[in-house]
Amino acid sequence: MRQRKVKNLEEKLDSCNEILVREPLQQKGKWAELFAEELPIYLEIGCGRGGFVTGMARRYPDRNYIGIEGHSSVALRALQNIRAQRLQNIRIAAQYINEPEEWFGEDEISGLYLNFSDPWPKDRHAKRRLTSPQYIKSYMKILKQGAFIELKTDNEQLFEYSVESLKASGWLVLELSEDLHRSSLDAQNIMTEYEGKFREEGKRIKYLKTVLKVL
Amino acid sequence: MRQRKVKNLEEKLDSCNEILVREPLQQKGKWAELFAEELPIYLEIGCGRGGFVTGMARRYPDRNYIGIEGHSSVALRALQNIRAQRLQNIRIAAQYINEPEEWFGEDEISGLYLNFSDPWPKDRHAKRRLTSPQYIKSYMKILKQGAFIELKTDNEQLFEYSVESLKASGWLVLELSEDLHRSSLDAQNIMTEYEGKFREEGKRIKYLKTVLKVL
Repeated sequence: MRQRKVKNLEEKLDSCNEILVREPLQQKGKWAELFAEELPIYLEIGCGRGGFVTGMARRYPDRNYIGIEGHSSVALRALQNIRAQRLQNIRIAAQYINEPEEWFGEDEISGLYLNFSDPWPKDRHAKRRLTSPQYIKSYMKILKQGAFIELKTDNEQLFEYSVESLKASGWLVLELSEDLHRSSLDAQNIMTEYEGKFREEGKRIKYLKTVLKVL
Repeated sequence: MRQRKVKNLEEKLDSCNEILVREPLQQKGKWAELFAEELPIYLEIGCGRGGFVTGMARRYPDRNYIGIEGHSSVALRALQNIRAQRLQNIRIAAQYINEPEEWFGEDEISGLYLNFSDPWPKDRHAKRRLTSPQYIKSYMKILKQGAFIELKTDNEQLFEYSVESLKASGWLVLELSEDLHRSSLDAQNIMTEYEGKFREEGKRIKYLKTVLKVL
């Protein structure tokens, strides 16, 4: 997500304190306490301006959502948007996440979204991809039984890598499309900011929904 | 599909003459003439007792359907079922098909269904699989621009083979599931006879819908 310099950023973030999670590591195992109602928690890593996760929170009031965005000036947009909509079932952390299992307790998360993640195209950066074996191992510690991982990307290499990586870790392809917008799966799709732009350009969006294989 | 010996098979087939296509090779390029209305034609190769193709014909009266089934005693069941339902938009050929382009003219078919095809597990029989490069080449001669190929199977090897084979021929994965009945794609699914049985046994059905890549 492109960053813009924001004047008085800290002050503006402060004004969204009821939605912003300042110390995510302190929430481990007790994220439920942040929400008005104890509902299943869904997580988006790399939520950008929050178009997707906010849309989901609006559509599913019976679920709680957490969006994580490393660029705080971008996260601010998400926070302001959520505040304007008075959504109660969503919180935002404006920090980078490296070890999900340090942020969340066992079984704390019911579903994970990774939308238009950084592809890190160089082999030596493969570990940084959000679908690397290391990350997947970490997700599996925080995800409930039956939880899903869902991802969208315009990047073919990242997509192939992610599908193989998840399969190798025992995940089953529940839904996959190499051209989401032409498939029937698009009917329930909420677009991210990136996605809207790509769509206009006629770019194919790849989509994957996986669940852990139960034998 | 299991065969049972049927008494007076020829006679019984004769009684379904209005639905049965006796000389499919003679129809090449003029299948539309067999139907009351000129509508896009969809084809199922290996339709068994016709549960799927008949269900589709009932659901989509604005399309014409052709089912092909090599075992004539099994095809008879499809014919009798169609006659009982008085469906006008479906025809059955009770013969094996080896060279689709000998049966159908260019662009004559708008979509192709391959459900629970024989997996032909031995490498030396790979050519007989309905998704072998040879078959795909033949389908491409009879399929319209924008047409799809859709398949379902319980056989993991055939599924992997088919996905790779179609991708290698330039087909794009529009929708894929390794567990159709647990995915949202199941909502519009019409089950075959095999599929109902597999579902009861808790077997995972694999599903693929592909379209030719347009660059």
